[in-house]
Amino acid sequence: MKIALDAMGGDEAPEALVTGAKLALEISASKCPNLQIILFGPKSTLEPHFEQGLPERLEFYDISDSESSSDDPHIAGADPDSIIRTALRKHREGFCDAVVSAGPTGAQVLASLLELEKCSGITRPAVGAALPALYGCCYLIDVGASLVASAHHLVQFAAMGIIYAREILNIAEPRVGLLNVGVEEQIGERNVIEAYRLLTESGFLFVGNVEGCDVLKGKAEVIVTNGFTGNVLLKFLEGVPEFLTKLLKPAEDERLLNHLDRQLDYQQFGGEPLLGIRGVSIICHGASSPRAIASAILRAAMIVEKRLPEKIESFLEGKFTSYFSRIKYLRSFRRGLRT
Amino acid sequence: MKIALDAMGGDEAPEALVTGAKLALEISASKCPNLQIILFGPKSTLEPHFEQGLPERLEFYDISDSESSSDDPHIAGADPDSIIRTALRKHREGFCDAVVSAGPTGAQVLASLLELEKCSGITRPAVGAALPALYGCCYLIDVGASLVASAHHLVQFAAMGIIYAREILNIAEPRVGLLNVGVEEQIGERNVIEAYRLLTESGFLFVGNVEGCDVLKGKAEVIVTNGFTGNVLLKFLEGVPEFLTKLLKPAEDERLLNHLDRQLDYQQFGGEPLLGIRGVSIICHGASSPRAIASAILRAAMIVEKRLPEKIESFLEGKFTSYFSRIKYLRSFRRGLRT
Repeated sequence: MKIALDAMGGDEAPEALVTGAKLALEISASKCPNLQIILFGPKSTLEPHFEQGLPERLEFYDISDSESSSDDPHIAGADPDSIIRTALRKHREGFCDAVVSAGPTGAQVLASLLELEKCSGITRPAVGAALPALYGCCYLIDVGASLVASAHHLVQFAAMGIIYAREILNIAEPRVGLLNVGVEEQIGERNVIEAYRLLTESGFLFVGNVEGCDVLKGKAEVIVTNGFTGNVLLKFLEGVPEFLTKLLKPAEDERLLNHLDRQLDYQQFGGEPLLGIRGVSIICHGASSPRAIASAILRAAMIVEKRLPEKIESFLEGKFTSYFSRIKYLRSFRRGLRT
Repeated sequence: MKIALDAMGGDEAPEALVTGAKLALEISASKCPNLQIILFGPKSTLEPHFEQGLPERLEFYDISDSESSSDDPHIAGADPDSIIRTALRKHREGFCDAVVSAGPTGAQVLASLLELEKCSGITRPAVGAALPALYGCCYLIDVGASLVASAHHLVQFAAMGIIYAREILNIAEPRVGLLNVGVEEQIGERNVIEAYRLLTESGFLFVGNVEGCDVLKGKAEVIVTNGFTGNVLLKFLEGVPEFLTKLLKPAEDERLLNHLDRQLDYQQFGGEPLLGIRGVSIICHGASSPRAIASAILRAAMIVEKRLPEKIESFLEGKFTSYFSRIKYLRSFRRGLRT
């Protein structure tokens, strides 16, 4: 299995990426010995980082980063010669099985949409994040692949979230919650009220509206919302440990702070796939540490093995149809796809 | 000074309200001896809670809660005979100086808009919440008076937030941040990009876009966003202490947990005013404890004393005009008001 790594994406590129790749190879030596990593980037820049010689399961794909280094995500994502576009194109062509990048999310989403097809039944791909919860964890989707979401988009997020939770998070029967400002059925913006209705008829294990305070309670294993709100919430949670560390400083209880840090550490997840496309495109935090990059690479391998994109597609085409054929939902869903 | 209290609003009505009113009278005895509380509700229901006789500075406004007890906020807010509408109408007529309620937020916002005029220059009233931050606190606005916000609404939220932070939170020069999914100027939805431009030209101390992780860092004292996202974020933060308490349980450090609880305790704020209306309408959490109700009543008294609505209006009419008269902003602002 070949995982492409955008060696020039992220705040600490290429150091964090190179070190992360080495770490992933070490960790995978016993568990996943067929894992190979292709570093996409200028060979002349990357080679000096391997004074001891190239590790066995690592190679370069020599490409200069020219335009792709632009700060504007639209330019990097739209430039067919950028590293991220090239890696995703090679992925489509079958040269590699997944692409991992810590470059700008916007550029990677745009590049993924330009280079890879959407899954049948999906009009709006999305990226989720597994947050800790009181019991198990909670998969929040979307966290920023796009900013606004229609009722139909929210239902698609739910479907993709269910598959992700089942396949990757090992939650057999994930419950779906709709993030809202209250639990009443008729509360919220029009698209959210409509999503409530569609989810009720979806055959999913839909628990209704959930509020901000329900996220960490684990009231649902999959919580759907628009990308703007999801992104703000995810990043807010990332800021909590630093805040608490300063807050609890007077206690000077190192053990406790470490415990807290481990629990709220987003780096254990490393990166999250853009769901709803025919391919594996893993989006990492720009400030990813080598450990986060290594986690993302291993997660990519897991997603490739589990054939997640195919499963999303067959869920939408197969079970989804039988779920909804009796209830008028599918017609309105298809109408949604056409409009 | 007379504060009207909706004695039948909230999950624990009327007990929490009655006890909260008694507590507020005790606390205010020395600090604010001219404070009077009018309990709006059915006298027959409320009287049994005063076996020891009525406290000196407390009286009833006898009104049955008939329709107002409906679960649908629109019905309670639209019903001119509901307790909340009646209390706000009496406020407009000068019978009382402020209204405090823990009833449904939607009903209270609707009732406030129906009974009280908007401040000149404000098209969209908003409610904020003071969150703890690493240094001082951060006033997040809007947290749910409405759900979506145009660029002009966001600028109005900023103006109201600045006055609130100065007058009530004692922050001399509050910095304004725009909540977004990244710090770049051109990121986000169209209305947010436009708000960025307007805020840059506003003369406010605008620090640009802030992300979710910046909220608790205290990167800005006033952070503006749409009511949907603000509400989700606020309630998410409310859920953090319970989550951490369970998380830190193994440590069994009571002292530490109490410390944490105090820091993240929203009840110390009690309630928040709906800003942008000619009057004082304090919105409390439905699950408010007596202590939270007492805080809200005292906060109402403070806001009346500080003449906050008048200050918002004069800021918008006076300083605001001089700030913007030289820079084309005002014209586009007025255009925004007309459209």
